Amino acid sequence: MSVTFPRGFKAAGMTAGLKPSGRPDLALLAAERECSAAGLFTTNSYPAAPVELSRARLQSGKARAVLVNSGDANAGRGEEGKRDAESTTKAAAAALGVPEGEVLACSTGVIGGSFDAAKIGASSGVLVDALSPDGGAAFAGAICTTDTVIKQAQSDAGAYLVGACAKGAAMVEPDLELATMLVFFTTDAPIEPPALRELAAASLKPAFEQLTIDGCTSTNDTVLVLASGAAGGDLVAQDSADFRELAAVMRDMADSLAYQLAADAEGGTKVLIVDVTGAEGGDEAQKIAKAIANSILVKCAVFGADPNPGRLLQAVGASGASFDPSSVTIRLGDVVVSDGGVVPRDYDEGGVAHRVIKEDEIDVSVEVGNGPGRARAVGCDLSYDYVKINAEYTT
Amino acid sequence: MSVTFPRGFKAAGMTAGLKPSGRPDLALLAAERECSAAGLFTTNSYPAAPVELSRARLQSGKARAVLVNSGDANAGRGEEGKRDAESTTKAAAAALGVPEGEVLACSTGVIGGSFDAAKIGASSGVLVDALSPDGGAAFAGAICTTDTVIKQAQSDAGAYLVGACAKGAAMVEPDLELATMLVFFTTDAPIEPPALRELAAASLKPAFEQLTIDGCTSTNDTVLVLASGAAGGDLVAQDSADFRELAAVMRDMADSLAYQLAADAEGGTKVLIVDVTGAEGGDEAQKIAKAIANSILVKCAVFGADPNPGRLLQAVGASGASFDPSSVTIRLGDVVVSDGGVVPRDYDEGGVAHRVIKEDEIDVSVEVGNGPGRARAVGCDLSYDYVKINAEYTT
Repeated sequence: MSVTFPRGFKAAGMTAGLKPSGRPDLALLAAERECSAAGLFTTNSYPAAPVELSRARLQSGKARAVLVNSGDANAGRGEEGKRDAESTTKAAAAALGVPEGEVLACSTGVIGGSFDAAKIGASSGVLVDALSPDGGAAFAGAICTTDTVIKQAQSDAGAYLVGACAKGAAMVEPDLELATMLVFFTTDAPIEPPALRELAAASLKPAFEQLTIDGCTSTNDTVLVLASGAAGGDLVAQDSADFRELAAVMRDMADSLAYQLAADAEGGTKVLIVDVTGAEGGDEAQKIAKAIANSILVKCAVFGADPNPGRLLQAVGASGASFDPSSVTIRLGDVVVSDGGVVPRDYDEGGVAHRVIKEDEIDVSVEVGNGPGRARAVGCDLSYDYVKINAEYTT
Repeated sequence: MSVTFPRGFKAAGMTAGLKPSGRPDLALLAAERECSAAGLFTTNSYPAAPVELSRARLQSGKARAVLVNSGDANAGRGEEGKRDAESTTKAAAAALGVPEGEVLACSTGVIGGSFDAAKIGASSGVLVDALSPDGGAAFAGAICTTDTVIKQAQSDAGAYLVGACAKGAAMVEPDLELATMLVFFTTDAPIEPPALRELAAASLKPAFEQLTIDGCTSTNDTVLVLASGAAGGDLVAQDSADFRELAAVMRDMADSLAYQLAADAEGGTKVLIVDVTGAEGGDEAQKIAKAIANSILVKCAVFGADPNPGRLLQAVGASGASFDPSSVTIRLGDVVVSDGGVVPRDYDEGGVAHRVIKEDEIDVSVEVGNGPGRARAVGCDLSYDYVKINAEYTT
């Protein structure tokens, strides 16, 4: 179901032949009528062509469809990339019978590769014919690259339905101002573009900015939300109870997808959740949370189930955040790893701490002790397989 | 020779029994008379006890000896750590027959471990008896942890001699304001503490801040310089030709040691040199250089000899530096990888680019094209062995 769970949406996925593996690589999400639409995009200085195209087209606040290819990022290709993003969405628009300005685009795969616009264009008819209200899973599958499972979420939100899916297993540290993470939300709520943008900023941005698989913010990261209005009824106003319910549901779904992304990270064997509380502010809390989740040494220790207190202490101390070192408590699960910069004398690496770090989900918490700031980072370990996958990515 | 190359210094290294392996783990560098001394220390918020002790004692600008242990970092131990740093330097001072305030300390090894101050104290006599003008190599060996080779340098500087050694193979991204990198410089030049501090700041800080093995700034990083004055003659004044010659020689030696550290990185198989020119300023240049050298994806690609242009493009674009993306040229060796964000159509991953990235030293250059700022980063690849070493560090 996923993105086709709400009323008013169809989707499809197919093999267009972009991936040497022959796995599905072209996907289309389409609404029965014009939708309100909002997007969040990568802050990388080299945004991919489809990112620039989608960002420009979303200035209207309206969209009808999203064309997604995996296998090639259509990034690092300059004017050629722009022309290809335009020609492929034009072909999809023609097959759908909608204005080309209402078709958005996302790409993921190799940067600076040989994007095959002709193949994508030639597949438009077949792809549109395959659109189905049951096509959510096929869509979620065809957008994957090194992902090993599809990531979906769906929920009721009062009178409305919300669906979502995501992909991304590396080059992921969304800075949305986002990472190649691609995320698609759909809802049948009737909502105007400004309120939808506010929903995306309030609910989706913070959820995905928690995520870091490898600290590498991609050229292609994109989160798109389409609202069909097919549920009918009054418009959802920004300060209404309906708005707040939608926001809460979308946040929960986004949290679920972020977790699913971390759990399917390239080579990943464990999810690392870091919760920071009591920092001077949210930004300082996030610096500490991300410093731990992005530390190569912490990631190796998590992979090896090594409850090394020094790795966590070092990462907090080098985070660059402003705090009083003597007031900070770091815990691994319930076990105090460092109290004011001191590892407890009875810290038991071989006992409780070792049992905690052997779990599939590792929870680290940091109580900073000097303010209201809180943040979470959702990460993963660094394994032999991550190195293997990325040492042999293109060759 | 190394740190005992200049006149007026003796050194020794021995096995005190701190390392389970039984390898040398205690070292002493001592001058025949009181030296001018300067230090650069980690910016980690949790500096180790010996860092705090050495920093405080260097306020006098004078020192006579440095006691170094490997095997335990004496970090994360609070008041106990302070007492142990004091008692061990006191024992060394007594054996040397010098004031304890003139003995500095450095430690490297496990954070939050069980520092054996009694063993170190009990070894003081043997260590002092072992001091020798030929003890430089023994000293350089006993300070090592996971290092596989000792790192030394020595040079004439006009009428003076300069010696140095270093250790560090992981948890290394010096931020001196520095990373556990330990570096020791000695010279027999006669120079007052303020001029020596200026030499350290001008010549050593920028050289070691280029280095990143894993992006992790340690709790223990220390660079110490001792000047014995044993060469005699007039004091070296800050604006003199002698000062400039010393500065140039020390910079060259520091560059050599930084390279040696990168070449002996844990699990490292290749050195990665990133040169950035034409940035708005030095800080912006350094952001770009470090973004590339610290990118997990770039490090994996270097390990796998995969000349993937997307990895470099992504890292520059996500560096957070201020630049005009269209004016930036990225090269792998002499091969243009990206020109204004566009991967050349004839970029040949299988040909020249592949030959370049198969070398033992990989040179990446970035011409930013909008200013005078330049910086270098000296890094290494990320291998299976790095993950293995750090997944199994304490357990």
